[in-house]
Amino acid sequence: MRFLSSVEMEAHELTIVSSSLKELETHSNLDTVNLGQHVLAEFFECDSNILNNIDKVEKYMIDAALECGATIVQKCFHMFNPYGVSGVVIISESHLAIHTWPELGYAAVDLFTCGTKCDPKVAYEFLKKMFNSKKASFTELKRGIIDRETLKLSEQPFEVAEQFEE
Amino acid sequence: MRFLSSVEMEAHELTIVSSSLKELETHSNLDTVNLGQHVLAEFFECDSNILNNIDKVEKYMIDAALECGATIVQKCFHMFNPYGVSGVVIISESHLAIHTWPELGYAAVDLFTCGTKCDPKVAYEFLKKMFNSKKASFTELKRGIIDRETLKLSEQPFEVAEQFEE
Repeated sequence: MRFLSSVEMEAHELTIVSSSLKELETHSNLDTVNLGQHVLAEFFECDSNILNNIDKVEKYMIDAALECGATIVQKCFHMFNPYGVSGVVIISESHLAIHTWPELGYAAVDLFTCGTKCDPKVAYEFLKKMFNSKKASFTELKRGIIDRETLKLSEQPFEVAEQFEE
Repeated sequence: MRFLSSVEMEAHELTIVSSSLKELETHSNLDTVNLGQHVLAEFFECDSNILNNIDKVEKYMIDAALECGATIVQKCFHMFNPYGVSGVVIISESHLAIHTWPELGYAAVDLFTCGTKCDPKVAYEFLKKMFNSKKASFTELKRGIIDRETLKLSEQPFEVAEQFEE
């Protein structure tokens, strides 16, 4: 594979940034574009039998990725002894990761997506329903923030875009 | 596999919580215990050739997991066309995930660990060095917070434990 020269890199960088900006054109009040949306979801009071079933957890994570419009690239899931499941679905738009504590009815889920094609909130709502979670929280972080004016990466930590509990 | 009854579940829950509390005994000023430490690391101004090399990214992520004392369970990495690598290392103590944007010299890394055996800061420092990152930030979140007094899961979103830029 040919690697880009620094001049080509810069041209490409501007192209992808312009393309991201184009995707966000309708959001005229935004002064930044971010490369990734990272949702931290906490699911409490879930069905422990589901959280301890690797087949179900894997199926629901894959379905959640498909529901929110993602393209699945790879997946790996692991069942811990005596209980608990960890797993990741790599998607073209980044990844979905889960860790479950069936003994506490708790699952920590990360939904990391790029671009505007996927809506992580759809995956969150889907998993909340599938896990029978009675209480959950959703926090969306912006990662890799690009300043619209300078078209450069803002070298700052993430920003919190949205947070709610239900 | 036999599944626990709700009474056994509760007994087990108290055992694991007591065990976590025991691990944290030396930190007598803490009034909460958390199931997971989640580090959001942002690496800026990295070596683009490294970020675009799937073999190197995979090697450094595995080495980072080993350096911080983790036990590797599974891994999956994917090279995007024309560039960028996504990958995850599932460890007994949760996972390490990466997404790279070589064209911007940027990598978003998540280090999610459970218990006190692993120190995610060691993995962060290791990756910062391996990627030749000239600017980086580290944010540690507590996920799955257990109240020491009630020994119950506090059904709140994560708490920010530590944040710094360098």
